[in-house]
Amino acid sequence: MAAKKSSFDLDQFLATRTEAVNAALDKFLPSEKTKPATIHKAMRYSLFAGGKRMRPAVLLAAAAACGGTEAAAMPLACAVECIHTYSLIHDDLPAMDNDDFRRGKPTNHKVFGDGIAVLAGDALLTQAFEIAAQAKGWPRYSHKDLILEIAQASGSLQLVAGQVADLEGEGKKLSVAELRYIHERKTSALLCCSVRLGGMSANCTPAQLAALTDFGYHVGLAFQVIDDILDVTQTSEQLGKTAGKDVAVQKATYPAIVGLEKSRKIATQLTDKAFAALDIFKGKAVALEALAEFLLKRDK
Amino acid sequence: MAAKKSSFDLDQFLATRTEAVNAALDKFLPSEKTKPATIHKAMRYSLFAGGKRMRPAVLLAAAAACGGTEAAAMPLACAVECIHTYSLIHDDLPAMDNDDFRRGKPTNHKVFGDGIAVLAGDALLTQAFEIAAQAKGWPRYSHKDLILEIAQASGSLQLVAGQVADLEGEGKKLSVAELRYIHERKTSALLCCSVRLGGMSANCTPAQLAALTDFGYHVGLAFQVIDDILDVTQTSEQLGKTAGKDVAVQKATYPAIVGLEKSRKIATQLTDKAFAALDIFKGKAVALEALAEFLLKRDK
Repeated sequence: MAAKKSSFDLDQFLATRTEAVNAALDKFLPSEKTKPATIHKAMRYSLFAGGKRMRPAVLLAAAAACGGTEAAAMPLACAVECIHTYSLIHDDLPAMDNDDFRRGKPTNHKVFGDGIAVLAGDALLTQAFEIAAQAKGWPRYSHKDLILEIAQASGSLQLVAGQVADLEGEGKKLSVAELRYIHERKTSALLCCSVRLGGMSANCTPAQLAALTDFGYHVGLAFQVIDDILDVTQTSEQLGKTAGKDVAVQKATYPAIVGLEKSRKIATQLTDKAFAALDIFKGKAVALEALAEFLLKRDK
Repeated sequence: MAAKKSSFDLDQFLATRTEAVNAALDKFLPSEKTKPATIHKAMRYSLFAGGKRMRPAVLLAAAAACGGTEAAAMPLACAVECIHTYSLIHDDLPAMDNDDFRRGKPTNHKVFGDGIAVLAGDALLTQAFEIAAQAKGWPRYSHKDLILEIAQASGSLQLVAGQVADLEGEGKKLSVAELRYIHERKTSALLCCSVRLGGMSANCTPAQLAALTDFGYHVGLAFQVIDDILDVTQTSEQLGKTAGKDVAVQKATYPAIVGLEKSRKIATQLTDKAFAALDIFKGKAVALEALAEFLLKRDK
């Protein structure tokens, strides 16, 4: 592991991929001047608010692990980022988590008002499918497969289900199983979908897809456990969003249920399982390995 | 025209098609008991609130005009109804039109709360693409074409644009051109998309698709002009939603800008243009013709 890691420059990978994803998103989205300007300003405000582009990054890294090209993976990378951004805009609404800050900037509804924020989310969700439809289909993975993959990960059984369970769980004492149900849907589903889409964009083998699914599931869960930990241990300035929010609204989190130390252990175990899933790539998944390690050690 | 109409039983067409669409939607949507139950109850509450299923009806009628089957058209008919229902749920939110009643029943957010109503809309929008992806692709119209058709009609340049312009136009004095911009996007876009998808599901010729586009555009505009007229002339009981709402919030409408009589004339002219577009079908588009006449003469 150490040897593989030292030979891979993750900072450069992330910097170049973020730049490429931003350029592609800029091309896919209507300009700020396109009528009605308000909605395109609102969509772009949140889409270009400095997000870490982790979902596109794992998607592009998975494509690379399977010998795919960035060109084939890019529309799908942009689509998942649109889905992620839409879900953040709607989650931040007063009717949901009621957050004033995101990525260090006022949330969409604080700038554009609740009505436009709802519509900006709607438009980004719709845009995701418009962009995904422009991806290249493959013999193994047709447009039908790609669209179903995104729709199922984002729908009422996954991403939306996670947000519903999260809303309904506020102020209640949840079990670890119930909390995992939320995390699997709220975070792991779209991250796992991103990793799988990366493989699909490279026309990967069924065995590779199974390995990527295993990897994505565990990294996604680890990612959310760490989010919970950071909410307790970091300041709002460090996070760029309101810290301590989970405790304030009595949201169930890993640290609240099992304590901070055990939460850290769980995150490490999940990441180990994710690493193990990559064995099949025999060292070709260096970017995915580096990303998983980065996600575990991040401090914001 | 009169001869064609007498030979076609529209009531029976609408009754059988509504039943078939409802049965198909019931199959596509997760049951009310599927976890998380709240979201599936909320989605189904609005989806089965007694809507007129006009978009599925024109879609199925267009498919029939092009010699297609109901089986091939049905997933697309269900997809556009999901899009329509999502847009109503979000439009009714306090942050938008703030409506308490829809189709004679309390609106989604009045029953389930604002947060779940936002999510139910999100889930139905996502579900639309999941369902559409399950339609049969054709040599002329691939899954890519079908998904793009729906995404573009529903996105920030069409359906969402109409709602944004509508929101921004409240209390302002709009020109007829500005009002038409709103109507084209808020109503005509999805109706036109529905008619086109019907043709696509029947692998129609490019000439047929052009005729259907022309038809759908004009029927869509006529539909919205009539909606404006009914808001002024009918009671809330007759409409099953709050009448006089447009006047109350000083919303720009055709009756407000050009008066009731000229509005009726415009609706008739638009419908005539729609009829003319169907000439190419040489009498095979009886269901579409009957639907257009029905839409013009409706009183709710």
